Amino acid sequence: MSVLDAHLDMRDRLLAAGLLYPTGVDGVYARSEAYERIAAALDATVRRWGAGLGATLLHLPPLLPRTTFDGTDYVRAFPDLMGSVHVFEGSDREHAELVRRVERDEDWSGLLGPAELVLAPALCHFIYPMCSGQVPDGGVLYEAIGSCFRHEPSADPTRLQTFRLHEVVYVGEPARALEHRDRSLTAGVALLEQLGLSISVVPANDPFFGRLGAALAAEQHEEGLKYEGVAPVVPGARPTALLSSNYHRDHFGVPFGIRTADGQTAHSACIGFGTDRIVLALLAEHGLDPERWPSEVGMELFG
Amino acid sequence: MSVLDAHLDMRDRLLAAGLLYPTGVDGVYARSEAYERIAAALDATVRRWGAGLGATLLHLPPLLPRTTFDGTDYVRAFPDLMGSVHVFEGSDREHAELVRRVERDEDWSGLLGPAELVLAPALCHFIYPMCSGQVPDGGVLYEAIGSCFRHEPSADPTRLQTFRLHEVVYVGEPARALEHRDRSLTAGVALLEQLGLSISVVPANDPFFGRLGAALAAEQHEEGLKYEGVAPVVPGARPTALLSSNYHRDHFGVPFGIRTADGQTAHSACIGFGTDRIVLALLAEHGLDPERWPSEVGMELFG
Repeated sequence: MSVLDAHLDMRDRLLAAGLLYPTGVDGVYARSEAYERIAAALDATVRRWGAGLGATLLHLPPLLPRTTFDGTDYVRAFPDLMGSVHVFEGSDREHAELVRRVERDEDWSGLLGPAELVLAPALCHFIYPMCSGQVPDGGVLYEAIGSCFRHEPSADPTRLQTFRLHEVVYVGEPARALEHRDRSLTAGVALLEQLGLSISVVPANDPFFGRLGAALAAEQHEEGLKYEGVAPVVPGARPTALLSSNYHRDHFGVPFGIRTADGQTAHSACIGFGTDRIVLALLAEHGLDPERWPSEVGMELFG
Repeated sequence: MSVLDAHLDMRDRLLAAGLLYPTGVDGVYARSEAYERIAAALDATVRRWGAGLGATLLHLPPLLPRTTFDGTDYVRAFPDLMGSVHVFEGSDREHAELVRRVERDEDWSGLLGPAELVLAPALCHFIYPMCSGQVPDGGVLYEAIGSCFRHEPSADPTRLQTFRLHEVVYVGEPARALEHRDRSLTAGVALLEQLGLSISVVPANDPFFGRLGAALAAEQHEEGLKYEGVAPVVPGARPTALLSSNYHRDHFGVPFGIRTADGQTAHSACIGFGTDRIVLALLAEHGLDPERWPSEVGMELFG
């Protein structure tokens, strides 16, 4: 079976089981009540860990201010993944022209302009402007739940265009940022293994764009800035990254003007749980009917 | 106090109480754990009602396929509210040009093109393509939870650009669609009054755009196609619509080719609960600390 066939087969089984519903666009699905019950239980499980660390939880909107987006330099690194929100602010006359062009399938995009918002590519980006200025001694810890977007249509049901993340973000001293990257990775892997998943930790890199991106990816990989916890989800395809743990150095501290208590530029680190991917991994591992999962997994998740 | 001051005062109190966090864009906020606990309990309360009706619940993504969006004719009726997702699919060379223009604050939007997705303006739009063809005798009932977008930046904390809806949608025979519009309105109002809110039902219209829109709005209003349940939320401002109940006649049945069991074009009706607005109404009515709400409201919501 080819990898494409493996992806299509897994997707077909999820659709046939009524866990996902197609919308007509690859990587964009409606989710069933049973699916969502797993996602909510997973969020609660991660939250118990985050609350124990003292993290402040924020529920985030799917849209990020464009000024924040520009500050993260995302358009340089991942232009092909972004989603820019464009809106119409014209008159009656321009509206008539817009409708005319839409109906004739002519190019109408010039009649719209960029809004003050983009689709959020990651949750931690919301956090940095909130930390501008000086953070308290010891730094700050935020937890974030929300929906992100990356434009990468795929038949692979684990590669969604719109998907939920659950992140825990540290901003403060460099040594503590590194410590957060490492401890949260260990804790995150343990949390997923408690749910019956077999996780391998591998050095990783972000999918930087283009020729310049290849060099950035190699550097990130070699310097060990990013690790992923991966597990087999789609039989016959490569393992899927279920979580990633990232040390950003001063990549966000510099543009957002964040300083530590002793006046240095703050460093940051973030662990991100891929909520939808973990739900799919649990379904792949324990079967498509959560009612029939091993009782210890059910107890761990649903209490 | 002016209406703007009333909106700003209410927003300031929500921010000061740590229920909302600013992102820098009007109508786009992060939400606290306490806020979200109310929203989740409200969804569960509405779901108990919907499940009793036999509705199939779908959790929907924030992005709607553009083909569906085009089918709803939204761009004719509400062009000023839509959010179109634009993406970059260029080469290394075009990427260099994109980065150059972004850095110099020049117009870069021509380097992006429309994606196959728009921001979802309403949840029921996802349902109609799923019903294409013939629906079973008696019609179908779907319930939908998800996040919608309307581009209307405002200091009014009840007028969000990105907000959650909880809808119950009927598709089938005209008489049953009308019945759904009326019965669900009565049930929805009763549900909110159980939570201690005082709801007034008023005939309403959608905010159709422009000169042509004024006529459409008047027609909708006069024919009694849309009712809203409104309540005072912001002291000193007009009441806020917390739910709306809508009879669409064949507005969606025609473009999506939906037929009843006896071969007629299907009609549809939809009740939409404005999840975030109801949370804000509860906070306004019972106080900003949910721990100190009247015990009967707490019992009703949190069990």
